[in-house]
Amino acid sequence: MIDVAILGATGYTALELIKILLRHSEVRITTLTTRQEGNPHIQAIHPSLHGQLDLHCESLTPSEVAERVDVVFCALPHRASMDAVPALLAGGCKVVDLSADYRLSDPGVYEKWYGNVHTDPTRLGKTVYGLPEIWAEKIPGQDLIANPGCYTSTSIIGLAPLLCGRHIEPTGIFIDAKSGVSGAGRTPKLTVHYPECNESVTAYSVGHHRHQPEIDQVLSEVSGQGVEVIFTPHLIPMDRGILCSIYATPISDLSENEFLDVYREFYKEKPFVRIVEHLPSTKDSAYTNFCDITVRLTRGRLIVLACLDNLIKGASGVAVQNFNLMAGFDETTALLPQSNSQSS
Amino acid sequence: MIDVAILGATGYTALELIKILLRHSEVRITTLTTRQEGNPHIQAIHPSLHGQLDLHCESLTPSEVAERVDVVFCALPHRASMDAVPALLAGGCKVVDLSADYRLSDPGVYEKWYGNVHTDPTRLGKTVYGLPEIWAEKIPGQDLIANPGCYTSTSIIGLAPLLCGRHIEPTGIFIDAKSGVSGAGRTPKLTVHYPECNESVTAYSVGHHRHQPEIDQVLSEVSGQGVEVIFTPHLIPMDRGILCSIYATPISDLSENEFLDVYREFYKEKPFVRIVEHLPSTKDSAYTNFCDITVRLTRGRLIVLACLDNLIKGASGVAVQNFNLMAGFDETTALLPQSNSQSS
Amino acid sequence: MIDVAILGATGYTALELIKILLRHSEVRITTLTTRQEGNPHIQAIHPSLHGQLDLHCESLTPSEVAERVDVVFCALPHRASMDAVPALLAGGCKVVDLSADYRLSDPGVYEKWYGNVHTDPTRLGKTVYGLPEIWAEKIPGQDLIANPGCYTSTSIIGLAPLLCGRHIEPTGIFIDAKSGVSGAGRTPKLTVHYPECNESVTAYSVGHHRHQPEIDQVLSEVSGQGVEVIFTPHLIPMDRGILCSIYATPISDLSENEFLDVYREFYKEKPFVRIVEHLPSTKDSAYTNFCDITVRLTRGRLIVLACLDNLIKGASGVAVQNFNLMAGFDETTALLPQSNSQSS
Amino acid sequence: MIDVAILGATGYTALELIKILLRHSEVRITTLTTRQEGNPHIQAIHPSLHGQLDLHCESLTPSEVAERVDVVFCALPHRASMDAVPALLAGGCKVVDLSADYRLSDPGVYEKWYGNVHTDPTRLGKTVYGLPEIWAEKIPGQDLIANPGCYTSTSIIGLAPLLCGRHIEPTGIFIDAKSGVSGAGRTPKLTVHYPECNESVTAYSVGHHRHQPEIDQVLSEVSGQGVEVIFTPHLIPMDRGILCSIYATPISDLSENEFLDVYREFYKEKPFVRIVEHLPSTKDSAYTNFCDITVRLTRGRLIVLACLDNLIKGASGVAVQNFNLMAGFDETTALLPQSNSQSS
Repeated sequence: MIDVAILGATGYTALELIKILLRHSEVRITTLTTRQEGNPHIQAIHPSLHGQLDLHCESLTPSEVAERVDVVFCALPHRASMDAVPALLAGGCKVVDLSADYRLSDPGVYEKWYGNVHTDPTRLGKTVYGLPEIWAEKIPGQDLIANPGCYTSTSIIGLAPLLCGRHIEPTGIFIDAKSGVSGAGRTPKLTVHYPECNESVTAYSVGHHRHQPEIDQVLSEVSGQGVEVIFTPHLIPMDRGILCSIYATPISDLSENEFLDVYREFYKEKPFVRIVEHLPSTKDSAYTNFCDITVRLTRGRLIVLACLDNLIKGASGVAVQNFNLMAGFDETTALLPQSNSQSS
Repeated sequence: MIDVAILGATGYTALELIKILLRHSEVRITTLTTRQEGNPHIQAIHPSLHGQLDLHCESLTPSEVAERVDVVFCALPHRASMDAVPALLAGGCKVVDLSADYRLSDPGVYEKWYGNVHTDPTRLGKTVYGLPEIWAEKIPGQDLIANPGCYTSTSIIGLAPLLCGRHIEPTGIFIDAKSGVSGAGRTPKLTVHYPECNESVTAYSVGHHRHQPEIDQVLSEVSGQGVEVIFTPHLIPMDRGILCSIYATPISDLSENEFLDVYREFYKEKPFVRIVEHLPSTKDSAYTNFCDITVRLTRGRLIVLACLDNLIKGASGVAVQNFNLMAGFDETTALLPQSNSQSS
Repeated sequence: MIDVAILGATGYTALELIKILLRHSEVRITTLTTRQEGNPHIQAIHPSLHGQLDLHCESLTPSEVAERVDVVFCALPHRASMDAVPALLAGGCKVVDLSADYRLSDPGVYEKWYGNVHTDPTRLGKTVYGLPEIWAEKIPGQDLIANPGCYTSTSIIGLAPLLCGRHIEPTGIFIDAKSGVSGAGRTPKLTVHYPECNESVTAYSVGHHRHQPEIDQVLSEVSGQGVEVIFTPHLIPMDRGILCSIYATPISDLSENEFLDVYREFYKEKPFVRIVEHLPSTKDSAYTNFCDITVRLTRGRLIVLACLDNLIKGASGVAVQNFNLMAGFDETTALLPQSNSQSS
Repeated sequence: MIDVAILGATGYTALELIKILLRHSEVRITTLTTRQEGNPHIQAIHPSLHGQLDLHCESLTPSEVAERVDVVFCALPHRASMDAVPALLAGGCKVVDLSADYRLSDPGVYEKWYGNVHTDPTRLGKTVYGLPEIWAEKIPGQDLIANPGCYTSTSIIGLAPLLCGRHIEPTGIFIDAKSGVSGAGRTPKLTVHYPECNESVTAYSVGHHRHQPEIDQVLSEVSGQGVEVIFTPHLIPMDRGILCSIYATPISDLSENEFLDVYREFYKEKPFVRIVEHLPSTKDSAYTNFCDITVRLTRGRLIVLACLDNLIKGASGVAVQNFNLMAGFDETTALLPQSNSQSS
């Protein structure tokens, strides 16, 4: 039984982590932290956990956490995360970091996009980016995994087969992303106040969203060429789900079906990528760890449609997937019904 | 042309007031106030007004406002309102106060429910409660009108004909109210954060909502008996609209149709109350100043279904209706298409 | 391994059944039926099942089904169900019937509310009503269980402790129910067309909803007195969840906390009823088999707030709970994470 | 006073037409038609019109309609419209046709995209396409106007200044459109059944939506070059509103501000186009006849964000705007508050 802590237990990703880990037969959640005063009970923070987990959220130092547990899921905001991770690792924990702090490999790029100096720069560039659909073989044995962003996972899973196979131009790629509101976190603010964003669609952070350099970096690295995307996120009036509609210019003369085969081949060993022929709805992958993808070829351009649940496959589900790989469990533990004869 | 100010211009009721008053041919909005710093332009606060109204929101004292305008719509929070109203009246303005500060007639009741001492107690009990469906004849000529709450208007319009006609028991009346989220105002907080209240229904303030004594007071006064309601509000995942499902015990032996006739008779001169035979949807009265009502008699109990738009008939529409009556305009000015031959 | 069929596989309750049963280690779904032509694959009907279940929906007679499987979940519409159940039982199957056909004990009451003669009347009055929170001990060993309606379960679980303990008047009970739209089924019609019911609340079937006699019957039987409720359902713009706000008149002089203790005692052995002190949101029980309940005492009246997920605890979850009890499995199998040390 | 008929009065565009025309001081709605049996009252079809318009919907031939009225708004489905229009014109009516039947100029293109032969082909190519932001000067005096589609208006208004000014490549333009559900009409079907499309986003008709050739045709004609767009519509869980996010490749070296100036100059006489500097939300133009636009320049590509209300500016509002121009009224009559001194 592995003892686990979740740092930053009051947010939506922490709630999903708890729900998933409660289904994990080899894990015991023993420690939850928050900066809120008064050690609130987790059921007071998340009433849906009533009767499910009997723990208080504590205010602990990373060293105190490290003394108690084997593995830490760090769901802190960026900047707070890099303050905690070194001490957690020094204390002997394995860490899955859900913040952005260890995703970018260049401290200068980090500083440019996040507005502060990185205080643990030597780990940048060495930390494995935890997208098992791309780098599953690098994850086992790691002590620290940088868990990817939700927009990023959708975009990278949607584009990697095309870029690795040299099927599209590596620049001039438009990613039009539509996200449910839970992606903006649990802190109240006007843009996600119900009467503001309900019954409305709007683009935001056009040209300067922090996931753009992350997408560029990972796709460039995995495909061995300089990839440049134009990333435009939109806020959609729904709880959860991301759909990326990706527009690219093909450089090979494959048919639509052959493009689908490129995807099927690329992801044939990946239990959480579903290549479908219909146009996927975010609802079909909601509350699951699946990413659904299809492609359409029209007027000489390629349209990729990729969707997933931003809180699960885009955050807490992939975090458990990374944990499973780090710890030597089956990748799907707690994420899929364990196989019996019906899932043929 | 009447010059008008709106105090507290950044909220949803102020936005609706502006939209309605822009259609009022006898009114000119000349002054908007806010406590926000920097005199923001109203179009920066409410982008939907782009190109419609070219005014900055200013930080002004009540006296400064009174020097500029004839009429003030006071959309300040309770407590702030009673700090401003005496000076506005002293400065010669007529005031429609949309806060709760002048609705209750007893300073002790006010203090009990709002938690602070009333600083202008001599006006309580003298200020007309601005529900034109009940007291239209009292409104012309007043200098100050206490504009009713949204839940209150729905409940009172729904119950007054039954109580005034002595058709139901005056106690043991259950009002189960369902409200859209805009009724909670524009200040972000966790309970109205999109992912919290979307896809969910919950009751709140059960047994201690501030509109309960307001409903009791007005219905007791209008019907000449001690009325006691049990008021249970619920938050519904939609922008606007209130539906009150009211459960009462009849003491007369009228049929369902005769009850409908009681309503038709009571409101026959009232242009904004629509007695309908079908079960009304909040959507039918959304974006209008109408209140839709029907009744059902089942198992010896009476069920009243009354709905309206909380921001219009429940706040800003009735405020303009009150203003029209105070100023001698037709009650429907700017609230209904002005009559031509088609509205037979 | 138990072989299972689901009749009427295209609806929402069937989809939830499949998702739950895929997590059940002792069950194998082998047969799905539909009246749609062409034996559509279940993944074409429910794209969310892509990669999860590889079965076609077939058009089979009850006898053909009975030859193939041990247990049948009958998710057919009422009337179609009683055409199939006798042959399924004759063929040796155990049946959980999710329709209304075997819930009422009196064929005359059935005919009055459903508008057709019951063709299998001898089983009425003998079939166990499958609400394990009330009659868990009657379920093991049964061949046929009448699975309760969603409104009914919420209402009965919310009222049984009060009525069985003789704490409230058995008549004049008002149940104001708010339901998400999935409760209306998957067949398109105007009332549940998106632009009609979105951003709107409305009551429907006031005084004549078919769940009213079902609630009366079960509560009368379990409490040994004539119970009469006034049931008013409302459609709320959300996918799933039911909240019943129940208004009753106490006849004992318990305090609010003592009423909560009545509930805690009544449900102390019931893993799916959570007595909470806060006002529950439907979202907290969404996607689970829990029913959350609290009570408030105000002005001498009792308000019960009870909520659950209409598709799970209100339909498919309780169906699997019934199946578990019939088949001798732990009641919570496939419905709760199987116990490890963390669920203290 | 002009007597007006609306053909096909049961849909959402007809409802919006009625609401707008009730505010039009020079118009009298005298005739409504439907193919539904029994001459239903318009208030039974649209309960929100209760007390507003006292007319039954009749089943009339075009000639019968033409005898009664001066102007016809034809809100019939495509194909039905071209069956009615010739007789209406022959009867002396002026017609605003809201269907697609007279929008395309080439009968072959019509047949390819709509699947049936055009029965009134001689009017194709001669009928003015009613987009007053592009061709206002052609509309006065016309007897028949082809009212544009909602996606089309958003796309054309968003792109015309760039294409007419030769600022972007005329091909390889990606239009990613997000539409509220009312755009799909009022006929219930599974894709717009509430629980299917709520809480979900999906693309549809990728590469073969009928508005694509309409956009190509109008933009090619107005800019004098062969324009080719890749149009990808998405269904968004909200009632109304369209946002088009348009991706184009600039061929001039203007700055972002200079691009904004191109728009301001192009639309300087157009009361319903608002060039804004912030990223517009569909909510800001909902329930109005405005189209809001901004542009962003990023990584050498141009992103245009254009939004409007699909039922008003995208259908019924522009229809009244066309009617105003045909009949010689001010373009904004019934669509904007009539000017007084406040709308500076």
